[in-house]
Amino acid sequence: MKISTNVKKMQPSSTLAAMQKAQALKAEGKDVIDLSVGEPDFDTPQFIKDAAWEAIQSGKTKYTATSGVKILQDAIVGFYEREFNKSYKPSEIMATSGGKQAISNAVATLCEAGDEVLIAAPYWVSFPEMIAFTGAKAVVIDTEETEFVLTAEQVRRAITPKTKLIILNSPSNPSGRVIPADEFRKIIEVCAENNVYVISDECYLLFVYPPNEVFSVASLSDELRQFVCIAGSFSKTYAMTGWRVGYTIAPETWTKAMLKLQSHTTSHPASFAQYACATALDNVEQSRKSVKEMLAEYERRRNWFLPALNEIGLVSAMPEGAFYAFPNVKKFANTSAEFSDRLLNETYCVTTDGAGFGSEGYIRISYATSMERLKEAIERIKGII
Amino acid sequence: MKISTNVKKMQPSSTLAAMQKAQALKAEGKDVIDLSVGEPDFDTPQFIKDAAWEAIQSGKTKYTATSGVKILQDAIVGFYEREFNKSYKPSEIMATSGGKQAISNAVATLCEAGDEVLIAAPYWVSFPEMIAFTGAKAVVIDTEETEFVLTAEQVRRAITPKTKLIILNSPSNPSGRVIPADEFRKIIEVCAENNVYVISDECYLLFVYPPNEVFSVASLSDELRQFVCIAGSFSKTYAMTGWRVGYTIAPETWTKAMLKLQSHTTSHPASFAQYACATALDNVEQSRKSVKEMLAEYERRRNWFLPALNEIGLVSAMPEGAFYAFPNVKKFANTSAEFSDRLLNETYCVTTDGAGFGSEGYIRISYATSMERLKEAIERIKGII
Repeated sequence: MKISTNVKKMQPSSTLAAMQKAQALKAEGKDVIDLSVGEPDFDTPQFIKDAAWEAIQSGKTKYTATSGVKILQDAIVGFYEREFNKSYKPSEIMATSGGKQAISNAVATLCEAGDEVLIAAPYWVSFPEMIAFTGAKAVVIDTEETEFVLTAEQVRRAITPKTKLIILNSPSNPSGRVIPADEFRKIIEVCAENNVYVISDECYLLFVYPPNEVFSVASLSDELRQFVCIAGSFSKTYAMTGWRVGYTIAPETWTKAMLKLQSHTTSHPASFAQYACATALDNVEQSRKSVKEMLAEYERRRNWFLPALNEIGLVSAMPEGAFYAFPNVKKFANTSAEFSDRLLNETYCVTTDGAGFGSEGYIRISYATSMERLKEAIERIKGII
Repeated sequence: MKISTNVKKMQPSSTLAAMQKAQALKAEGKDVIDLSVGEPDFDTPQFIKDAAWEAIQSGKTKYTATSGVKILQDAIVGFYEREFNKSYKPSEIMATSGGKQAISNAVATLCEAGDEVLIAAPYWVSFPEMIAFTGAKAVVIDTEETEFVLTAEQVRRAITPKTKLIILNSPSNPSGRVIPADEFRKIIEVCAENNVYVISDECYLLFVYPPNEVFSVASLSDELRQFVCIAGSFSKTYAMTGWRVGYTIAPETWTKAMLKLQSHTTSHPASFAQYACATALDNVEQSRKSVKEMLAEYERRRNWFLPALNEIGLVSAMPEGAFYAFPNVKKFANTSAEFSDRLLNETYCVTTDGAGFGSEGYIRISYATSMERLKEAIERIKGII
């Protein structure tokens, strides 16, 4: 069976591979500490669950518009008005099956063979594969020299006449680093000057630790916004990873193309999940409270865990957002895969090899797990390095 | 903004366009009869809803494997064992965001520029667009001469050295026709002889009116199955259109490629919806009862509606499955779009122009609406033709 050229080029997800290794060890009865998880260890807040049940019970179990139900579109408009003082039209918004589909739709509608797409390493594992699927070429900007914070100057140097698009992700998975607002603006300006489109993956938007500030490209000028697609997600912010709801906010031409593509490939995310997400946004007080509580807990873990990692030699820049550390492990092994395997086999701690994120020599360690387990992980790892 | 070549070639969905026209008229306060609907007018059975709520309440709100939770894969295996006496391995099965994603994944993993893909007209509107997205060429087999029932001989004549794939759909949306089991087997044999892969869209699998019999390609020999991907769906069978859950059953190599693609574009369908679907299959008695009741009601409507349509001149072959009539309207207007528009403007009956299904001169009329509304529709249409 001959698989199509572009799909053949795609690599399986290394984060999923880590998850599978963890499951296999658990099945053997090992006391596994899973530091590879890319999702909150909190459950979805009850008021959001209740909204889903109300929708199911009242028969909201039918097809919706591909772009999502009006109440969800309005709720997204309301969120950006409230948080960023920015007015969007519903025709610029569409609901997607998770932030992942938001990004892959946005890439597939613009890119094809002959195009170059910029991504900054370390990148989210799916970025290069979404690009490969379209036949375009991923051009990787290494950001090790700037401690994983992309700069406008790095972007400017990477742009060629073939550059069609850049995918940005701040706070970053896997590094937890945040691009400062000023630099972010400069990056978009450089792109706009060169007619390069931008996808801003804002999946960790609200998960930023003070004194760092939340920044969305929504706050940019209307002129710059003509080049930008926001890929949003409910997954992390409201602990709704399994619900598979995200959204895009993009200029109408781009949105129209994404709608067409999505209408023929998956349609809309689950109908009642859309109502639940509308409730998540519209119930401002409860939402804020729930985000605040989760963020405070992640911050508490970060503040203990990062110094503890540094102390045992796993040195990582302090993450300003998300819930990952990304330490340098070059002195412990020849490759990060080798080190990650050693941690797995000798300590039953599951981490993710940095090579899959484009940064050989590093590993990703998620702290979306309890303090107790984080402490246990430090003890175990200290014992072998 | 330059949209990518393949996405640019894709056409918006004509069935969605009909739905939008209907909504616009309703918003104007018109008493619209919507005969364009492609979904059951029944609500999801309560026992399935309850299973979703139980899953949500017990925290099944997290990421699952891309291929779906084990309990769903096992339930699908169980269904095919029970109904078709066929054993599948979980590694041949993956859950998708609706039957639509099942088909589009299967097309995208095999096809690319230079390939030809066979589809029989009238075809489901998304088939040619899924093909266009890959860069492959859709080759349409007109089946008007065989009253919309595809034959092995027609397939044989259409195959060229470039033919990579055929997409079959029986019972058919939009014609309601069913390919007899013997002919179906012959079609797959012709394909296998010519190294042509097959997607069997079995979305209306159980919606077949007696004395016609349910047929799945699952009942074919293991040798033939090496060429076949089943695209299944919970949407119509269990009145779950809004839930967006379907699945593929395909050889391991094909499944592996589809998994890789899906893992980087959307991941899995909603976690708790998967548990609900497992319950739909595993609760054999309740499922069968619910399918039987819905089918009996569709049959009752068909038995009244089709003769009534024929009587007013909208002559259609008797549908053997699904819930659509597909009458010839050539004598009423120059184009089926013109006739469909006339019905809309003069009777507020929404139908779907056959041109979007590749069969100019016909319209699709759904009878997934109440007897009362069907009777009213006949009265109104009779008044103007």
